[in-house]
Parts: sequence; C-alpha cells; structure tokens
Amino acid sequence: RIDGARLWDSLMEMAKVGPGLRGGNNRQTLTDADREGRDLFKRWCEEAGMSVGVDSMGNMFARLEGAEPDLDPVMMGSHLDTQPTGGKYDGVLGVLAGLEVVRSIRDQGITPRRPIVVVNWTNEEGTRFAPAMLSSGVFAGVHTQDWAYAREDAEGKRFGDELARIGYVGEEPVGQRKMHAMFELHIEQGPILEAEGKDIGVVTHGQGLSWTQVTVTGKESHTGSTPMPMRRNAGLGMARILEKVDEIAWSHKPHAVGAAGHIEVFPNSRNVIPGKAVFTVDFRSPELAVIEDMEARLRAEGQKIADEMELEIAFEKVGGFDPVPFDEGCVEAVRRAAEKLGYSHREIISGAGHDACWIARVAPTAMIMCPCVDGLSHNEDEEISREWAAAGCDVLLHAVLETAEI
Amino acid sequence: RIDGARLWDSLMEMAKVGPGLRGGNNRQTLTDADREGRDLFKRWCEEAGMSVGVDSMGNMFARLEGAEPDLDPVMMGSHLDTQPTGGKYDGVLGVLAGLEVVRSIRDQGITPRRPIVVVNWTNEEGTRFAPAMLSSGVFAGVHTQDWAYAREDAEGKRFGDELARIGYVGEEPVGQRKMHAMFELHIEQGPILEAEGKDIGVVTHGQGLSWTQVTVTGKESHTGSTPMPMRRNAGLGMARILEKVDEIAWSHKPHAVGAAGHIEVFPNSRNVIPGKAVFTVDFRSPELAVIEDMEARLRAEGQKIADEMELEIAFEKVGGFDPVPFDEGCVEAVRRAAEKLGYSHREIISGAGHDACWIARVAPTAMIMCPCVDGLSHNEDEEISREWAAAGCDVLLHAVLETAEI
Ligand SMILES: NC(=O)NCCC(=O)O
Ligand SMILES: NC(=O)NCCC(=O)O
Repeated sequence: RIDGARLWDSLMEMAKVGPGLRGGNNRQTLTDADREGRDLFKRWCEEAGMSVGVDSMGNMFARLEGAEPDLDPVMMGSHLDTQPTGGKYDGVLGVLAGLEVVRSIRDQGITPRRPIVVVNWTNEEGTRFAPAMLSSGVFAGVHTQDWAYAREDAEGKRFGDELARIGYVGEEPVGQRKMHAMFELHIEQGPILEAEGKDIGVVTHGQGLSWTQVTVTGKESHTGSTPMPMRRNAGLGMARILEKVDEIAWSHKPHAVGAAGHIEVFPNSRNVIPGKAVFTVDFRSPELAVIEDMEARLRAEGQKIADEMELEIAFEKVGGFDPVPFDEGCVEAVRRAAEKLGYSHREIISGAGHDACWIARVAPTAMIMCPCVDGLSHNEDEEISREWAAAGCDVLLHAVLETAEI
Repeated sequence: RIDGARLWDSLMEMAKVGPGLRGGNNRQTLTDADREGRDLFKRWCEEAGMSVGVDSMGNMFARLEGAEPDLDPVMMGSHLDTQPTGGKYDGVLGVLAGLEVVRSIRDQGITPRRPIVVVNWTNEEGTRFAPAMLSSGVFAGVHTQDWAYAREDAEGKRFGDELARIGYVGEEPVGQRKMHAMFELHIEQGPILEAEGKDIGVVTHGQGLSWTQVTVTGKESHTGSTPMPMRRNAGLGMARILEKVDEIAWSHKPHAVGAAGHIEVFPNSRNVIPGKAVFTVDFRSPELAVIEDMEARLRAEGQKIADEMELEIAFEKVGGFDPVPFDEGCVEAVRRAAEKLGYSHREIISGAGHDACWIARVAPTAMIMCPCVDGLSHNEDEEISREWAAAGCDVLLHAVLETAEI
C-alpha cells in the first residue's frame, strides 16, 4: 500500500502554487504558476531518485530505472495545469499519485523489471489554449507540433512562445519515447461513484467530444434609437442557439451532454446592440454517431436561426476526439488490483477527456477513477477525501507493478 | 450661415484623436485619448477668443463674453467621449458645432447681449463608467459627486481617480454655473430623418431609459462529466432571459425597445458550465408606464426562469432616466431657425439619452437633430454628410443667436 498521508501532503503543497480565490487553483498552462508547479514536481522527482526529461512540447518524464533498462517503461501520469477557477485534484492527483507510487516502490526496495515513468502532460485543460489534451495529442501524432505552437490564447500569445518563456522547451523530440503501457488515475468529475458508494471506477471507455466555435455577426447599433425591426442583434441570435444546444443534448438521453462555457459579445457596451457574438459549444457522448448528429444539428439549426434574423454565422471546429475504448489488458489489471486490495468498484465511462484518451492510440492504456464530492469539478470547491485518493493510488501501484513485472 | 468646411475640418481633426480600428473612434471617457481630445478642444476654444473653465466633474465650459456679462449665458454643447467602437460624430458634432457657431459669430463681428458658452460634458456614453450622461446628471443634481467619483470601470478603476489622472478635476464646484438656456445638436442615431429626407429634427421629447444589471448564479462544473439533470447552467438561464427581453420589448409596439449590449459569463472557459452570468438589459420608451411595465416583467420573468432552473438571480438598477419633454420656447426657437433657413424639418423624439435630457431639469433646453446614414450609430461606420452637419450647425447658430439676444 502507498503512504496516503505523504500523498495528501504533496497534494496540499502543490495546491499552494497558483492559488485560486476560493481555495482552489488557478495554475493555467504556461503561466508563471505552471512553471513553479513544474519546478516543484521536478525537484520532488529528483529527490525520489528519478531523472527528469522534457520533450519539445514541455511534457515532463520522470524515470525510475528498471532491472532491465532496455525494456519499454510503464508510464503513469496526468497533468498539473488547472482551469482558471479549478480544483486541487483534477489532473494533479494522477501526477502526484505517480510520484507516490515511485516513492513507495523505493521505500520497499522493489525494482521492477521495466522502468517506470511518471509523466506530466502539458496543457491538458485547453482553457488557455484550445484544444484540450494538446500535448498528449501531439505525442500521439494527432496534431503536429507546428500547429500546436501556433495556438493562441485570448490575448493573442502563442503556445510556442509561452512554452519558451517559462523555459520548458525540452531537447527531446516529442512522441519518440516508447512505452509498454500507460495508466492514468483521475477524479471522476461526475457523481456516479460517490452516489453508489464505490471506491474505484474501472474506466472502460472515454466518451468523445466536439468543440465548435460559433461566430454570429449582426450589426452594432444604438440600443436606444435603433427601431426593433431594424436590429440585427448577434447576442439575441446567440441566445436562441444556446437554447437549441440544450435541446439537442437532451434529445439524446441519457448520456449526451451539451453546453457553452465560453461566451463573448462585441463591443460589449451597455448601449450597443452586439454586432458580434463568439461562443464555443461543447457536445459529448460515448457514441460517435450521436456526437456527429448533435454537431450537424447545431450547424443546421444555427444557420436557420441566423437566416431568420438576417445574421451571418460561421462554425469552426476547435477541438474534438472520438469515443475511445481502453486496452482490455490494462483495464483487467486495474480491475484485478481493485479486487485484490478489497476496494469496491464498478465499470465507468469517462465523461471528460483525458491525456489517456490520446495515448490509447499509441500504447495500451487504461484509467482509474476515484469519486469526488457531489461530482463537482472545474470548480474551486472540487473536493475528494484522503481515503479516496489513497485507494486510487493503491490501485495504481498494483496495476503498475503487475504491468512492470516485479 | 456657418462655415461648413471649417466645421468638417475640425470634425476630421478631432477624429484623429483616439482612432478606432475601422475608421471610427475609441476615445472612451477619462482615457489618455480623452485627455488629448480635451486639450485640443481647449486650444481651439482659446484661439477662438474664449476662456475655458473646468468644473469638479471635468465638464469643460468655453465662454465667449456677451455685451452684458452679468446676464446668464446661452449654452450649447454635447460630449467628446465615444464608445469603444464608436463613430466620429456622436457627441462630437454637438461640441464642435458649438465652437463653429462662436467662430462664425466672431467672423461676423457680432456681440450678443448674453455670453455664449460651449460645453463638453464628461462621460456621456456610460460605456466605461455606468451610467450614461453621468456628469450632466451630477450638474443637474440627479447624482451626487461622491457617488459619481466612486463609479468603477471593468478593471475596478474609479471615475474620480481617472479624472484626476488625466488632470481634469477643475476648481469650480459642479452645478453652480447659471444658464439662460441650453441647446444640443446631435446626430439622430436612428433612421427616420434620412428615410423621410428631412434636414432637421426638431426634438420635442427624449425617451426614457432603464438599465438593469442581471446576475444569474448557477454552479460551475465540468461540461463533460456533469449529467444534464445535475447542471445549473447560468449561461443557459441568461439565454432564456435574453429571449424574454426581446419578447417584452416587441409587446409594446411600435416605440419600446429592449436589448442587452453587455454580457459576461464566468469563468468563461470552454469546458466549464458557466457558474455566473452578468448582463445589462437596456429598455426604453417615450412612456414612463411602459418602461416600468417592461422592468417589472423582466424581474418577474427572470425570477421565474431562475426558479425553474434552480438558479439564483439578482437585479440591480444601474442607470435610468424618465422620458423628458423639452422647453417649448427653446423648441420653438429651433423650429423658427429651421424655417427661416429653409431647411426641411419634422418633430422627433430622441431615442437615445443625451446630456440635454438632464439639463432640461435645471434650465430651458432643446435639441436639434441631423440625419445619419442608415440610422447607424455606436458603430465605427457611423456617417453623416457635410451638408447635414452644416444644416444642423446653421440651425444651432440661429437658435442660439435669437436666444442670446443679438
Ligand atoms: N479532465 C478534464 O477536465 N479534462 C479537460 C478536457 C475536457 O474538457 O474534458
Ligand atoms: N447619445 C448617446 O448615444 N448617448 C448615450 C446614452 C444612451 O445610451 O442613450
């Protein structure tokens, strides 16, 4: 078993870096706070006897040598970046649990045959630079590095420039590391495990996602002196489309979801009818056909609304991934570990996207989930118990040790 | 008649200060660009033989002495501040036409009995610091100066601090200047005059306004892993309310209007269901009872939507003024001037708020309107013809001279 108190201390230490306003974190990717978090993680890894490599996307790989260094390593990890008003566990748990696994292995003097690598993937959240899971995506060959470097944040700063600014452009070309398997421990970010009183989610699939950025263009004009029939209100057009998004998602009960988290109007002045509205629609489902249907209906219904209101509309796909099945062998290893340790468990589909979803394309991969309070995530109030964290980390330890062949 | 070419040159010179991105202006109140515009106006006024006083709200008064200096002056003016993506004429025309009137009077060696004052009112637009017409409102005793100083912009900067920063806190206590009458020339900002081919709008009333800032609070959570029935989506609540705003305004055909120009969601991240949405609803009508009805329905319908969606909602009145009738004597002076000069004209109600609407509470006041292309304003593409500007300025000259008793 791992040392639950040590894991918890590390989580609380890391949470001091890039604190939020209400007890959570704002450690967005490639900010100074992100650099500080990375530096701390690097120091901890070196203290735990690992050597840390960084690739050209800033992905960090901390390696514990195996008895047979030439064998492909078993990886485990997640991400240290957070939402602007994020929690202390989303991503962080998976990275620091990896560190705790290594600390525990060393405490017990075990040396597995295969090397073990703890990884921190860059820009998983996608909040500052869309899309999410950017750097695991480049690692897996889904995006090119040049394209990733050119992603811009809301201020027009480029990913590549910001990565260089914080000093995390590594020498190692991205995607060249071989791996035997990867495991990612993550909080569920949904309500199922807590509601059913299960300690562990054995993740069999990840649901797919589609992000469509919608730009509605009308005509800026005066809110007081422009008669109602002459208005071309882009904000009102957006409102009608947002209602449709909700309708479309509900029409695919019980699993599909849809919402817009990103919404902006221009020029955003109280007495100017919005001439432009930009927002991003997030649709998800475990079934690809459902995602495709929702996306098609968004485009058709959005176009119809725009036409009726004499607005222009444009759609741009700014992110997406297909539903993914995890590797049966790895999933079995997770299930066996939970069984052996006596933790209650159930199969679960991941509602969120994770680095593991991309890595699954290039290596056998699986995920372990632990509950979170009220299913709440992407919120500073995100919370888990020490016991949940420890149970998840225990399962990670055993699944990894089995796979790394002790 | 005034010198139309000189007036146009001044308009084009001023438009170079705080240029927009597409040919208009971004000279928001109390910015460096605003200071630069004020300095230029001051220099022009001094060159035209006027002495410039500034009051404690930054309102600027350029005075041409009359034959009888003890008589109360006739004022004319408007504002030099603009929207973030504003035009070159909204407000500016009324100030620079006042300057042109003085230049013409001096060219012709006329000295009216009464002094003549050209005024630039601070923060008419209300886009950076709500409410609109802030400083004419303080002048007229509608707001206190302390309250006005405490207004904050989106970055939390205070009006009083920014006024001091640009060096325009005058020694003169606000509201103490006496005046015999005030005239404001302004572009219509609506489509009526152009559509009917009229040169001049004789403004009999200003319609009233109500600005209600609505805050909808839900719960930030993950867009992927939060099941639809568990969502408390503040952005979706806002969308439903925006539709109601439109419905409510249409229900009072033909004059009432309603829209939201200011819209923000938090934390504004693509994969976070908005936990909070803040937006400002702008309702207007020439009838007070209609405004009150629309406001009451916004609150009732908004509350209902919030209750149904398990959201919290709060309403704050952040601006407003009642419909105002202008002074019959001053309105007659405008009509007589248009008649005498042979300009086509019609009575009109102002759809926008203007400094004249507040000043009407403390002195006889009227407004003159000229057409603008497509009724477009609060848009960088706002346009007028030289002839329209000159006609409006001619009418201003004659109305002012008659009132100032030559
Ligand atoms: N786990 C997580 O929150 N990932 C961010 C990508 C997503 O929106 O699913
Ligand atoms: N004239 C003008 O645009 N004034 C701003 C105040 C308003 O919104 O009516």
